[in-house]
Amino acid sequence: MKPQRFALTPGEPAGIGPDLCLLLASQAQPHPLIAITSRDLLAERATQLGVAVDLLPVSPDAFPDAPAKAGSLYVWDTPLARPAVAGKLDKANAAFVLETLTRAGQGCLDRHFAGMITAPVHKGVINESGIPFSGHTEFLAELTHTAQVVMMLATRGLRVALVTTHLPLRDVADAITVERLERVMRILHADLQQKFGIAQPRILVCGLNPHAGEGGHLGREEIDIIEPTLERLRLEGMDLRGPLPADTLFTPKYLAHCDAVLAMYHDQGLPVLKFKGFGAALNVTLGLPIIRTSVDHGTALDLAGTGKVDTGSLQVALETAYQMAETRL
Amino acid sequence: MKPQRFALTPGEPAGIGPDLCLLLASQAQPHPLIAITSRDLLAERATQLGVAVDLLPVSPDAFPDAPAKAGSLYVWDTPLARPAVAGKLDKANAAFVLETLTRAGQGCLDRHFAGMITAPVHKGVINESGIPFSGHTEFLAELTHTAQVVMMLATRGLRVALVTTHLPLRDVADAITVERLERVMRILHADLQQKFGIAQPRILVCGLNPHAGEGGHLGREEIDIIEPTLERLRLEGMDLRGPLPADTLFTPKYLAHCDAVLAMYHDQGLPVLKFKGFGAALNVTLGLPIIRTSVDHGTALDLAGTGKVDTGSLQVALETAYQMAETRL
Repeated sequence: MKPQRFALTPGEPAGIGPDLCLLLASQAQPHPLIAITSRDLLAERATQLGVAVDLLPVSPDAFPDAPAKAGSLYVWDTPLARPAVAGKLDKANAAFVLETLTRAGQGCLDRHFAGMITAPVHKGVINESGIPFSGHTEFLAELTHTAQVVMMLATRGLRVALVTTHLPLRDVADAITVERLERVMRILHADLQQKFGIAQPRILVCGLNPHAGEGGHLGREEIDIIEPTLERLRLEGMDLRGPLPADTLFTPKYLAHCDAVLAMYHDQGLPVLKFKGFGAALNVTLGLPIIRTSVDHGTALDLAGTGKVDTGSLQVALETAYQMAETRL
Repeated sequence: MKPQRFALTPGEPAGIGPDLCLLLASQAQPHPLIAITSRDLLAERATQLGVAVDLLPVSPDAFPDAPAKAGSLYVWDTPLARPAVAGKLDKANAAFVLETLTRAGQGCLDRHFAGMITAPVHKGVINESGIPFSGHTEFLAELTHTAQVVMMLATRGLRVALVTTHLPLRDVADAITVERLERVMRILHADLQQKFGIAQPRILVCGLNPHAGEGGHLGREEIDIIEPTLERLRLEGMDLRGPLPADTLFTPKYLAHCDAVLAMYHDQGLPVLKFKGFGAALNVTLGLPIIRTSVDHGTALDLAGTGKVDTGSLQVALETAYQMAETRL
């Protein structure tokens, strides 16, 4: 198979994203991987870290078709507004961060890239700069004109997708509607088939309430919303089990026979995922017309420039993007 | 140390509680352990299971001071209203179930027992019989005139206590008040000291919202309620860390330095606990004037009488009750 090109965005220049990309370059990748960021930033950070990396400039006129050798990294140079200092946020560079995402996302749409892998950005500093920004996921949804996306985290042996994501807890129950649940389940089911190559995905669905509502004693959303929606989608042939209590679902008896868990909200599904996958979990945005995976951690400003970072999450994000691209072919 | 006596309630007679108690009797216990249930029920279930157990009748007039030998079990005979059939709920026996709990709980108050260990009851059938019943915890709180109790689940290396328990998710946010949080934290702190022998308990506290509210962007309860309460209790010398995002708190970096996690609600804390502790987790009721531990699973009606049950959770519930009683001495 001809190697496909992938885009890698190091994200926030003051965070650990640039460090991770540089450390990763010590190993050869199976595909051409192009970091979209400032070449000067990478050169300075490499010096700070004491890492020898050969930075190879590339551009849309002549993207490479062969992987870079170990110890080198392709860079699509994207200039900073101001030089970045490890650990120091600078809102002057917020537009730069978004430009790297736009280049990666548009490059995927234009088929220059088979997928994109993102290191963390810092939402706060982008918003402080005056640019409204909810996160990578929403940004890429807008760029690709996608109405609904689904956040899924994964690690070896466990995938957890979310019906709702970054909502205050008090707003979660009202956000669990038949419409949203159905849209999310269709996207999850379709992407497990198309991007993960699972012919008949087995999905375990959490209840919203403790004990999945215990027959209506602890809330009625299971009876009024979740069960009827699952029942209708089962008639279409989807393999759906639930709604199940979240604290019994995440046990071997159930997990051994599932391809993904659908949790109703953030803190119902992600603590187990991150507990199990610590240091080797990744984030996948489902529903996009492009492949996008991401690390599962933040910018860790205090660790930028120190070399005390773990590339585990970035490695699984890369591997998963490669696998998804092969599956989709 | 003189052996102390403990009460064991097999709970729902149609469930796996009697089976677990019988299977457990194959091993000797370090303390006299008294099953409070129907002797006939145990005898019939033993026959059904093909287990040879010597059932030794005891009564409050002459409770034993020495442990029973392996293969035998002390029984404080408590008559059923109707013979119980494994797997078949019968509301005629609801009052019997509550009588066993009353005998155990009152026996603890009267110092006949150093603690009680409970197998599962079936809330539904008790309520159907016309007796309002929310669960063991609430029943024992009332019996012992305790205004506030705290549910904590534990397994090797992890304890998780809950600020709220069996509430519909949409009611959780409003239930997180300064008053409740403070009461729960005082009980957790005091019981970790007095019943678990931890001189200076280190407690990790979850936020309510995803990312612990992300500085107010995803909910304000951390800022308005949780942080000020923790701050005030820290001034009294409590070692409290948080509020932390639930999906980063349950990772080795944090868990390695904590004695208990305080989660704001059921499905925030228990999925990780049960994932980690599968088959060997127990439930402890904190705040009671007595020691009470419990298995972490339900009545499993479909498995009653089959012998296909795992005594792992009951064993850790027993061991923990023994340890708590020694600590309290």
